[in-house]
Amino acid sequence: MKRNPNLSQLKSNYLFPEVNSRKQEFLAKNPKAALISLGVGDTTQPIPGAIVQALMKASYNLGTLKGYSGYGPEQGMQMLRKKISEKIFFNRIEPDEVFISDGANCDLGRLQMLFGSDISIAVQDPAYPVYFEGSVIQGVKEIVPMPCNPENHFFPDLGCLKRTDLIYFCSPNNPTGAVATKDQLKHLIDFAIQNRSIIIFDAAYSSYIQDPLLPKSIYEIENAEKVAIEINSFSKFAGFTGVRLGWTVIPKALKYEDGTSVNTDWNRLITTIFNGASNIAQSGGYAVLEEENMLEIRKIINFYLENAAILKNALQSIGKEVFGGVNAPYLWVRFKGQESWDTFQYFLEEKHIVTIPGSGFGSQGNEFIRLTAFGNREEIHEAISRIFQKS
Amino acid sequence: MKRNPNLSQLKSNYLFPEVNSRKQEFLAKNPKAALISLGVGDTTQPIPGAIVQALMKASYNLGTLKGYSGYGPEQGMQMLRKKISEKIFFNRIEPDEVFISDGANCDLGRLQMLFGSDISIAVQDPAYPVYFEGSVIQGVKEIVPMPCNPENHFFPDLGCLKRTDLIYFCSPNNPTGAVATKDQLKHLIDFAIQNRSIIIFDAAYSSYIQDPLLPKSIYEIENAEKVAIEINSFSKFAGFTGVRLGWTVIPKALKYEDGTSVNTDWNRLITTIFNGASNIAQSGGYAVLEEENMLEIRKIINFYLENAAILKNALQSIGKEVFGGVNAPYLWVRFKGQESWDTFQYFLEEKHIVTIPGSGFGSQGNEFIRLTAFGNREEIHEAISRIFQKS
Repeated sequence: MKRNPNLSQLKSNYLFPEVNSRKQEFLAKNPKAALISLGVGDTTQPIPGAIVQALMKASYNLGTLKGYSGYGPEQGMQMLRKKISEKIFFNRIEPDEVFISDGANCDLGRLQMLFGSDISIAVQDPAYPVYFEGSVIQGVKEIVPMPCNPENHFFPDLGCLKRTDLIYFCSPNNPTGAVATKDQLKHLIDFAIQNRSIIIFDAAYSSYIQDPLLPKSIYEIENAEKVAIEINSFSKFAGFTGVRLGWTVIPKALKYEDGTSVNTDWNRLITTIFNGASNIAQSGGYAVLEEENMLEIRKIINFYLENAAILKNALQSIGKEVFGGVNAPYLWVRFKGQESWDTFQYFLEEKHIVTIPGSGFGSQGNEFIRLTAFGNREEIHEAISRIFQKS
Repeated sequence: MKRNPNLSQLKSNYLFPEVNSRKQEFLAKNPKAALISLGVGDTTQPIPGAIVQALMKASYNLGTLKGYSGYGPEQGMQMLRKKISEKIFFNRIEPDEVFISDGANCDLGRLQMLFGSDISIAVQDPAYPVYFEGSVIQGVKEIVPMPCNPENHFFPDLGCLKRTDLIYFCSPNNPTGAVATKDQLKHLIDFAIQNRSIIIFDAAYSSYIQDPLLPKSIYEIENAEKVAIEINSFSKFAGFTGVRLGWTVIPKALKYEDGTSVNTDWNRLITTIFNGASNIAQSGGYAVLEEENMLEIRKIINFYLENAAILKNALQSIGKEVFGGVNAPYLWVRFKGQESWDTFQYFLEEKHIVTIPGSGFGSQGNEFIRLTAFGNREEIHEAISRIFQKS
């Protein structure tokens, strides 16, 4: 049996496990170091009580003959699809265009299986690595980078961009924290319509948008339903990183060039190789979207955004160039002339702070590190005081 | 954007959704019909209290600052991997050869992504449709059927079987209920070694094996670790069909022809496009494997096996040829000379019983229907009395 040649195209380590292994290596040598993680974008604040109650209730029901449930629809519980349609999309999107998943990352892998290997894709540089790496695993040969940097305000220059079948676009962006405006998204949609491309719009951080003028969903823009898939998740929205729940929207208006429906093919794929998200997680997700619980969720998001603001102010006060951190939980910090893995090592060894090196997201990240605001407040303050200390 | 040609190779409906849509159609016309489902293999009995407590505890913890946890390792919680290594494999398999998943079906899809399109596969006929259909989605061109029927005692004739890269094999079998003996598995392993093939062994129903002479894991057979991957699940084992939890074993001794490790590639793939199973589900899975809870689980399995025996006896008493239903929760019932979708419709319309037509599992299933024993006892009795009634 021969090895799948696509796997050998990957670097041996995926970014986040590599960061973790460097951290473990450091800890092995410095077992007493009190590391602060501003690295992996992992939530830290407890899930609000009423949502936990819903998770517990769903678990409890599984122990009763009347409340027990087995396989649900692969597409997700109808009441949850309907609630997302209402509360997230204000009925702009229909319930049967919403598919519940066990997380955005997992659905990205399945979308890559859906579209297959014989396609071309465009990916922001820097970007969340799965767009690129999952596509390589799937055997995609043509991957066009879309450089995003301070010089172009983190929005790709579509005027000189080559046509591709798929365009991955993430806003609020991971890692840069940049949020696309309505005008920018309109350009992107026009570009996709003109080129008969499909946009995979990753909105996993949309709940961090505070500015009412910024679009939280690509479907706020006219014609998006004809060209865009939108991925989202309860992970960063409601602290469900470990619970595993997300959704993907495939509008019925989205068609292949032969006129067949992407929604139909997606439905066929996920009813074949997926069995739905955990029923416990789905009950929790439904509770997240109840009006009174959304207020609690909002407090946690505000808390993380305050972390971001505190970090951003501190870094700017010592002259650092910082992007993001407003309407987004990530800060993208420039260290001019320094390679990002060196900056990563510097922070790890000298400051005992774990960061993510920007080059892990693409070549445009070489001079940057990504910081996350998903920490506890004391850790954020402690991190700042360590950064301020001369080393 | 063109459609992935692999998707157009599939029949428009996957078996189980098709069964469901026929059922809904019937119900729309006969809203008062009290249907009994002996169709989809979905568990019906509540999860034992101590396991439910563990699910509730894990949910509760997510609401506390101290107990909160976000992303776990993509490979699964170390303590669960260790527990499976001990309790299921008696340390024959190491913890880091065990990867926790959100279910066998989902890991099958990921394994198909791992091996890619440029391979040949062999699949039992009849078989659980995902082996075949997931491979078609992935673009596999050469799919060799392994006919399994009463004449060959549901074990393929390896002597005249063409060599393939992968061999899918399920025991206890879904749908036939046949369980491979140690000798049969030894032949299969020898065949794979000789042909440098990899076996994907689906053991999702292994907990239904009562006969101590029958192997519950392929790793009970010598050399299996050099050629076999084993997939399993908490679904039918502990009523977790809705909770979503499973595992896949990729032994470190399993190598590609270039000497590289399948385990390493799998680790790379799942750390890229998967984020681990739900932490709530994993805590529940750990509880399942506690000694005292295993006794409770065993009672439920015995209950389903009694259902199977009752159904089997009843059908045999009216002269039906019935396979399976011993050491397996499925009965494979022959209706000579009748097309299986016709038998399905007959049971639906005349007996108000939902079954699964055998042809949905492959051409060898044309004269069969599959019945599941995962029902309530009263329903099983009621189903039998309806079958006995002249219609």
